[in-house]
Parts: sequence; structure tokens; C-alpha cells
Amino acid sequence: MHKIFFVTSNKGKFSEAEKKIKNIEQKSFDYPEIRSENLGEIVVYGIEFLKEKIRKPFFIEDSGLFIDVLNNFPGPFSKYVFNKIGCKGILKLMKNEKNRNAVFKSAIGYYDGETKMFEGICEGRISTRMSGKKGFGYDPIFIPKNSDKTFAQMDIGEKNIYSHRGNALTKLVKHIQKS
Amino acid sequence: MHKIFFVTSNKGKFSEAEKKIKNIEQKSFDYPEIRSENLGEIVVYGIEFLKEKIRKPFFIEDSGLFIDVLNNFPGPFSKYVFNKIGCKGILKLMKNEKNRNAVFKSAIGYYDGETKMFEGICEGRISTRMSGKKGFGYDPIFIPKNSDKTFAQMDIGEKNIYSHRGNALTKLVKHIQKS
Repeated sequence: MHKIFFVTSNKGKFSEAEKKIKNIEQKSFDYPEIRSENLGEIVVYGIEFLKEKIRKPFFIEDSGLFIDVLNNFPGPFSKYVFNKIGCKGILKLMKNEKNRNAVFKSAIGYYDGETKMFEGICEGRISTRMSGKKGFGYDPIFIPKNSDKTFAQMDIGEKNIYSHRGNALTKLVKHIQKS
Repeated sequence: MHKIFFVTSNKGKFSEAEKKIKNIEQKSFDYPEIRSENLGEIVVYGIEFLKEKIRKPFFIEDSGLFIDVLNNFPGPFSKYVFNKIGCKGILKLMKNEKNRNAVFKSAIGYYDGETKMFEGICEGRISTRMSGKKGFGYDPIFIPKNSDKTFAQMDIGEKNIYSHRGNALTKLVKHIQKS
């Protein structure tokens, strides 16, 4: 099987993918990310830009944290918002909020001559304080459904079982094995 | 002189431009907005997309509120963030913050066969509560330097004297008059 490129500059994401996909290699390559509220649209746009520039097969992933009481903020802008206000900013916005429901979403676009999309979600809630040192981004404040630990308190194997990205990666793996 | 199209779906922005430019017409036309921290880059990208699709001359504008203590959040994502958490969310993030410095920035891209960029800024501060009903977006919580009123307490003429957009529009007007 050919080597598969995961086009991302995020080491945490790559570590998660590497646990699930053999023969994978991280590739840093900038591509335009449109301002859309739809992760799938952002990924399709990225694939269109990259497909003449990167050796196939390759995939990209975009994810976001959608918080119920904040009208799905920060959504597809999760990375930008994280870099600016961090988990602390989110906890400040969520102060005294009783509805702490949130969903993490992931969209993977895989290109091997044609584009295939795989999506994953993870329901959960925003904790009232930061816990754990593992993972990245909002992991210290997100507790998935059926767990009492944040993502940042889980090792990669455990996070992958629950997580939106783990979910989408499972679908990608099934597709690769079939083809 | 030919009619100039202002490609925007924001009526408030158009009203401000209309006060400064004669023979202007609002045109709603979607264009991709890339996720960049640089307003100029976003505008240039928009122009490249639009220039074969819209009758020239036309211009587009992108603006953002950059709050010092929030690492320049919400920046180029001001509209998205506004739609999600509003002025109230910003006030919540700014609670107990002593440094309330903020800058509004505007970038205009004008296309008449070639692309010209015009930028404007407005220094000021984030108020501690919402005041005023005029304008749009963050106007109720932004007080420009040398004023004690928020943008939302000013009529368009007065806002244009201070504002980032008024500033950039003045540069555009000078350019149009010269050419």
C-alpha cells in the first residue's frame, strides 16, 4: 500500500491518526481555510487546493468544538479562538451557565484521485475547570459522554475510543482497507 | 463617472460608504473569506475571486476589532464571533480587565482593472457596558479615542469622522477623485 500523507501542522492530531493508520506520514503544507460554519465545506475547499500539489493519497482534517449555550461557538474557528482566549476564555464565557452541553466534530477529506468525506462527532460537556495535561486545544475542559474524565486526562488510545477524530479516522480506515 | 459597486451584504457598512461616495450601489455577492489574521490578505483573496464576476469598478471591505488583553481577539473573525457571543460575550471576557485598549481596523480592496488597497484604523477602548442603539456589531461597546461616546451613540456622520472604515473610505475617495 502507498504511504498516506496527513496534511497537518498539528502534532497532536498526527499522533492520534498514527495510532489508527499504518504507513502514514505527516506533511506540513499550508492551504487556504475558508471562513465557513461547515467543516465539510472547509475540508472540500482545502482538498481542491491541495490535490494538484500533494502526492496522493492524502487527507486533511478539520475539527471544532460546538458549545450549545454559546450558539455553537467556537465551532470551525476553534483553533483561532483557542490561540486567542484559550480554555480560560471559554470557562469565563461559560461561568454560571447550567447548560454545559457541547459537541466536538471532525471532518476528514481523503483524496486518492477522488474525494471522500468522513465525519465523526463526540457529545459531551464543558467542565467547570481545567483538568489533565495530555492532548491539546480544548481537551482539558471537554468531558465526553459516558466518561468522567476530560480528554486531557486520557491517553491517546482512550481518547480515540470516544473522540470525534477517532470516530472519523475509524471510517477512513475502513474505507482504505476496502480499496 | 461609472457607478461603483460596494460588494457587501451589510447594510450598516453600505450606509457609511454612501455618506462618503457618490454614485455607489450595494451589491450582494458571496465570495470566499479565508481564515487569515491579516485583513488585507482576506480582501485580496476576495478581489481575486470577484474580479471576473463583478462589473468593475467595485470594492470590498473587511474589518475587525482587535482587543489588546485578548491577544487581538476577535480580529478578522469579528463578525462570526459577534453572531455567536455578541457584545455580551465580549463584556464577559473583559470583566475585571483593567487594560481595555482596542483597535478597530478596516481594509478596503478596490478593483478597476488593477487592485488598490486602503487601510484605516481607529484606536479606542472597550466600555464596561453597552450604550447606544445606532450602528451595528460591536458599536455599543467601543469608545474611540478622544470621545466619551460609543460608536452606537453617534450618527453615521460623526462615526465616519472617527472610524476605521471612515478612514479607509476617505483614502478610497481621494484615489477615485485622482483617477
